[in-house]
Amino acid sequence: MRDERAITERLKKLVSVPSGSRLVLGIGDDCAIYRPRGSADDLLFTTDMFVEGTHFLRSSYPPAAAGRKAVARSLSDIAAMGGAPRFCLVSLCVAPWSGPKWVDRFFDGLAKIAGEFGTILAGGDLSHGETVVCDVMICGSVPRGRALRRDGARPGHRIYVSGALGGAALGLTMKSGKARQRQVNPEPRLALGQFLREALHASSAMDVSDGLSLDLERLCLASGVDAEITFPPQFPGSSPEQALHGGEDYELLFTVPEGQKVPSRFRDLELTQIGRITRPKSNGGSVFLNSERLRAQGYDHFREHGREYSVSST
Amino acid sequence: MRDERAITERLKKLVSVPSGSRLVLGIGDDCAIYRPRGSADDLLFTTDMFVEGTHFLRSSYPPAAAGRKAVARSLSDIAAMGGAPRFCLVSLCVAPWSGPKWVDRFFDGLAKIAGEFGTILAGGDLSHGETVVCDVMICGSVPRGRALRRDGARPGHRIYVSGALGGAALGLTMKSGKARQRQVNPEPRLALGQFLREALHASSAMDVSDGLSLDLERLCLASGVDAEITFPPQFPGSSPEQALHGGEDYELLFTVPEGQKVPSRFRDLELTQIGRITRPKSNGGSVFLNSERLRAQGYDHFREHGREYSVSST
Repeated sequence: MRDERAITERLKKLVSVPSGSRLVLGIGDDCAIYRPRGSADDLLFTTDMFVEGTHFLRSSYPPAAAGRKAVARSLSDIAAMGGAPRFCLVSLCVAPWSGPKWVDRFFDGLAKIAGEFGTILAGGDLSHGETVVCDVMICGSVPRGRALRRDGARPGHRIYVSGALGGAALGLTMKSGKARQRQVNPEPRLALGQFLREALHASSAMDVSDGLSLDLERLCLASGVDAEITFPPQFPGSSPEQALHGGEDYELLFTVPEGQKVPSRFRDLELTQIGRITRPKSNGGSVFLNSERLRAQGYDHFREHGREYSVSST
Repeated sequence: MRDERAITERLKKLVSVPSGSRLVLGIGDDCAIYRPRGSADDLLFTTDMFVEGTHFLRSSYPPAAAGRKAVARSLSDIAAMGGAPRFCLVSLCVAPWSGPKWVDRFFDGLAKIAGEFGTILAGGDLSHGETVVCDVMICGSVPRGRALRRDGARPGHRIYVSGALGGAALGLTMKSGKARQRQVNPEPRLALGQFLREALHASSAMDVSDGLSLDLERLCLASGVDAEITFPPQFPGSSPEQALHGGEDYELLFTVPEGQKVPSRFRDLELTQIGRITRPKSNGGSVFLNSERLRAQGYDHFREHGREYSVSST
């Protein structure tokens, strides 16, 4: 069976990097990093698909909320790198059911959150198909060489997470309430990301989009380290499974070097130490919860639907 | 009834541009233009969706050709602005029918054309849904302030087109042959685009992706002018309708100031004058073929499917 990681690893091998390329970081982090000739800034690039039936149901997502969330997911990647969003490109494939009113409200929600975070809608593409699919590319900027990456965690560094986990997963089963709000209207942690970069000098960071167990595994793999954690702060009412493996919380997971002071809060957001980076037992990527191996069970589009995609796997 | 233009015009009004923004050009051209702080280059950004059932049929597109074409369409937008492609982000939504072999061959075709044109696959997103949808964002670069745009055509400027038109539309009905190749394996005119910018100092340019009648109307609208043309060079075997209105030829349409010499060929590609820019009779955007008004009939995702999307149009 293949998962996203297998496909991604195969893609990395296909990529040829021309000599003199200004691409600083390619496949494998929250954003790619490009260093324009002569510029004082590095540019961050991320793209996220928002697919009907996979990321949202037309019956339960108001169109403005769908538009908002399509952008929030990509903004969260810019936050994870400590960047400031600059502009976005939006590709929207409409379906027979999504009439002009739906499209207008979708773009209203999209434009509203983009404006709130200083992200200019600079272009995109319109198409039609059988289901609604939206892809949002966001460009952000960060002072040259200062982006927060996944590969900077070292043994001894402390691991933190912002807020509480499991709320968005819990919200999948709710019709209203705070957990439902976490699911439908996630808040990209842009101010926190910039604080982590400027004030805390975090050694690594990423957003928790696919569940703590899977995302922390990815951070450890990128850094070539293991991690030892305790139970993370749990969203009120969520199950332990939702807190450990549930996706879409869009909180930030980060590490800081030993000796770096971390406040208990940033604005109204709690920052909680959940563990420490440890020396890798083999190639890295192993996460231990209270000394027991924690297997990644977060959301993987290909693993979850393994039977469909493994038919002719090579 | 609403078309893409109506939606685009509405979007432009929704966009707020923060003060000090480095976005030079937003919605409405082949690419957006961003000017990084301190950089000698402007960066170009374009994104194009490639949707199963709309842009390709699984039954008639080999996966490698689908991957190739998904990238070629966006490369054509970089060509239209006179840019050099630098990197791309690829979002792919797979379907139950597209197994690992299909995905591998799709990415093989995609990586091959990207490599041919010096475009690094820098990241993207993987998802799943009911049908295959691929969105390709390409970043290109151009010396600062030198991008070819749609809005520089002025009365008296001569209008040219590269190659011959109608082949890709003809190829839709073919199983093999040169027209089929035009449909399945379009060639982005990157070298020509850079030649138009550097050597010909073209006053405007765009690619012919949705049919000459619609694309020339768009160029005229952007420039606030009208156009008077004769019949364009026709792909052998194509109908007059296919040459005038058929999409996906990905040739370049451009204008040059009076007095600018234009060679009859660039490499193996003919460059043919098809008319002149004229003073607008009203707001611009009117195209006349042999003095008769030529109505835009090129491909518009919303106009073609107007009944589906105009139900609740306001």
